[in-house]
Amino acid sequence: MNTVKIINIGDELLLGQVVNTNASTMSRMLTEAGFEVACVEVVGDRRDDIERALDDHAGYDVVLITGGLGPTKDDITKKLLCDYFHSELVESEVALENVRRIFAVRGFELTPVNRAQALVPKCCEVLNNDLGTAPCMWFEHENRVFVSLPGVPFEMEWLMANRVIPKLRETFRTEVIINKNILTQGIGESFLSDLIEPWELALPECIRLAYLPVAGMTKLRLTARGPQESSLREAIDHAVRGLYQIAGQYIVGEDCETLAELVHKTLTERGLSLATAESCTGGTIASSLTAQAGASAYFKGGVVAYSNEVKVCALGVQHSTLEAHGAVSEETAREMVEGVRTRLGSDLAIATTGIAGPDGGTPEKPVGTVWIAVANATHTEAQLLSFPGRRRQQNIDRTVNQAFSMLIHIICQKH
Amino acid sequence: MNTVKIINIGDELLLGQVVNTNASTMSRMLTEAGFEVACVEVVGDRRDDIERALDDHAGYDVVLITGGLGPTKDDITKKLLCDYFHSELVESEVALENVRRIFAVRGFELTPVNRAQALVPKCCEVLNNDLGTAPCMWFEHENRVFVSLPGVPFEMEWLMANRVIPKLRETFRTEVIINKNILTQGIGESFLSDLIEPWELALPECIRLAYLPVAGMTKLRLTARGPQESSLREAIDHAVRGLYQIAGQYIVGEDCETLAELVHKTLTERGLSLATAESCTGGTIASSLTAQAGASAYFKGGVVAYSNEVKVCALGVQHSTLEAHGAVSEETAREMVEGVRTRLGSDLAIATTGIAGPDGGTPEKPVGTVWIAVANATHTEAQLLSFPGRRRQQNIDRTVNQAFSMLIHIICQKH
Repeated sequence: MNTVKIINIGDELLLGQVVNTNASTMSRMLTEAGFEVACVEVVGDRRDDIERALDDHAGYDVVLITGGLGPTKDDITKKLLCDYFHSELVESEVALENVRRIFAVRGFELTPVNRAQALVPKCCEVLNNDLGTAPCMWFEHENRVFVSLPGVPFEMEWLMANRVIPKLRETFRTEVIINKNILTQGIGESFLSDLIEPWELALPECIRLAYLPVAGMTKLRLTARGPQESSLREAIDHAVRGLYQIAGQYIVGEDCETLAELVHKTLTERGLSLATAESCTGGTIASSLTAQAGASAYFKGGVVAYSNEVKVCALGVQHSTLEAHGAVSEETAREMVEGVRTRLGSDLAIATTGIAGPDGGTPEKPVGTVWIAVANATHTEAQLLSFPGRRRQQNIDRTVNQAFSMLIHIICQKH
Repeated sequence: MNTVKIINIGDELLLGQVVNTNASTMSRMLTEAGFEVACVEVVGDRRDDIERALDDHAGYDVVLITGGLGPTKDDITKKLLCDYFHSELVESEVALENVRRIFAVRGFELTPVNRAQALVPKCCEVLNNDLGTAPCMWFEHENRVFVSLPGVPFEMEWLMANRVIPKLRETFRTEVIINKNILTQGIGESFLSDLIEPWELALPECIRLAYLPVAGMTKLRLTARGPQESSLREAIDHAVRGLYQIAGQYIVGEDCETLAELVHKTLTERGLSLATAESCTGGTIASSLTAQAGASAYFKGGVVAYSNEVKVCALGVQHSTLEAHGAVSEETAREMVEGVRTRLGSDLAIATTGIAGPDGGTPEKPVGTVWIAVANATHTEAQLLSFPGRRRQQNIDRTVNQAFSMLIHIICQKH
């Protein structure tokens, strides 16, 4: 298989003020295209470090570089690449035309700083960047491909999908790769590992297994690689059937990356509508659904009932319930979920109420105490969670995943 | 300054199914502690690749390694480190006691797989991991420190803060570093760069500037390094005063990483309450505020008014307004913001309504058309945004940032 090294350039990455999502986006796209990302290296905006990272290219067929192409002073990649490949900077007609077009669309005047973005090393081929002014540059050097891309995530992603990967596929012959995701919930990674060990040991050579635990949910990813698609599909199908036999009770769904995606797919396919009433999750359930295009087909809306007043006025929770049982209680969760479902007129509803932390707990209801309720027209289910940790975001994310899992469960159940 | 190399191990990172947040978290913490992260390398769960990454340690004082310590089959780091340092695996009393304690707290029985987590190379010092069963291991080898940490983000972060960084500080002498963030909104990166170029060129040697554009907001980060805190502070203060003189109108705030953090801080300090009515942002404003501990002090709650019915029933938007002007209109945005402020009884409110994309636009209202409104007791302001792109998440994130910027503006204004 053809191997790739990714070099992400940027002081902001090494100072930790920006999360390097480019590396994961590029890796995912390359993997799906049949390339093996063997290494990611992140270096700062310093000439020596970038050169060292470029020099260390033995054993890779492709080196992809992001960053350092912007119009600002701390960006130096382009001049460096020019020297590295013993070339000279020339103004590219293609790149200049692109910069002009983008400034015309935006109605801005072209400044000298912007015009300088059309300068590229003479030895490269410019791959047109439809979304931005920084050029994408393709170099072939000693039987190896080097590509320099802008670091802006959406420009990089568009260029990878529309320019770089198609051209890499033309240049290299790629193996078939099939990925299969199985989402499990309600069992820890190590217990799952113990449970499925015999199955795992019996997997054929062409299949690799990875455990991807995220916020209470463990995604199992099977990756099959080989020359022939049909035999890989058979091997994966056989493995999945075996997994259901020993761990079926923990499997929530397949073929999705996240439970939010599974909920999105399930509700869309079944034509069911949803409303949310969120206290401790504070809008995270709603935002993780509405982040997906097409959510308006099933998501009616929700209430972020952070204060008790809002629980009463917007959801119809009884004052007496709050007084007798408190905001974090089964009774409140049930009234929230039924209130939002009725008021917003949806088929299904989710409610959360709890203490996400790090503070705000009591001896009876410590940090990590959360009630989740889900409801359809005939049935309401509530569940108490007790997270051991005081980490706010973790408790929120685990609550969201557990709520999605309960929702899938109530949809697939018969009542 | 002492330099650090970070090695993150995990096939899941190279397959792009998990974003490597560990690298940015560690980098931020190390930078704040006065270390320079010179390089991050990500490699898969393959012995050769990990060894090569370890071998490439020349020029670094510290090598930090994450991942590969879990109880599952694809984790191999520990055995590899044992061979690498010519040691042998022994059961650590400290680590075993920790594993026992954690299983007792969780009420689970210890399996052989879990007990094996207490095996460590004899030559290392175990730094106790209070939050998990994977050990943190400190090696000193040829005047260099190697530390192996678990890859689970919250365990890694806790260990860095409580074990690794304090011990690194003991071991090395660290320079003083001061970071200063200035948040700007309403001007593109390249225009800002042109505007402040004379100021930037006149910055003293000890200060480095970085542009960190995120979703329409550009964060300028000044980093001062040197032996003496007081002179660094003076240099930073002087530079910031100069920046206000030439770009003050674009500066929204200081000393925060994000506008959500700035809103959180501002509302908390001023004792003002907030409610939200979100259509196109779908709960993202609420969730980015409630992600911060203490949000309940000012955030009353909100409505995710995704469908028109919810805009009417939960916010009191008039049917006639929706019919005459549509859901994406100034009139609807104003009724949403005033409706949610009145109904939830807050001092301030934010409303968003728009077409996030990638589909759903019309010739009159293309994808990227967004209305934002903010209100206090006496005043409502609305603004039309027209984003050029069809990227959903980008349009949502830019709307959120612009809404936060408008909120800060209305708070600081006199009416």
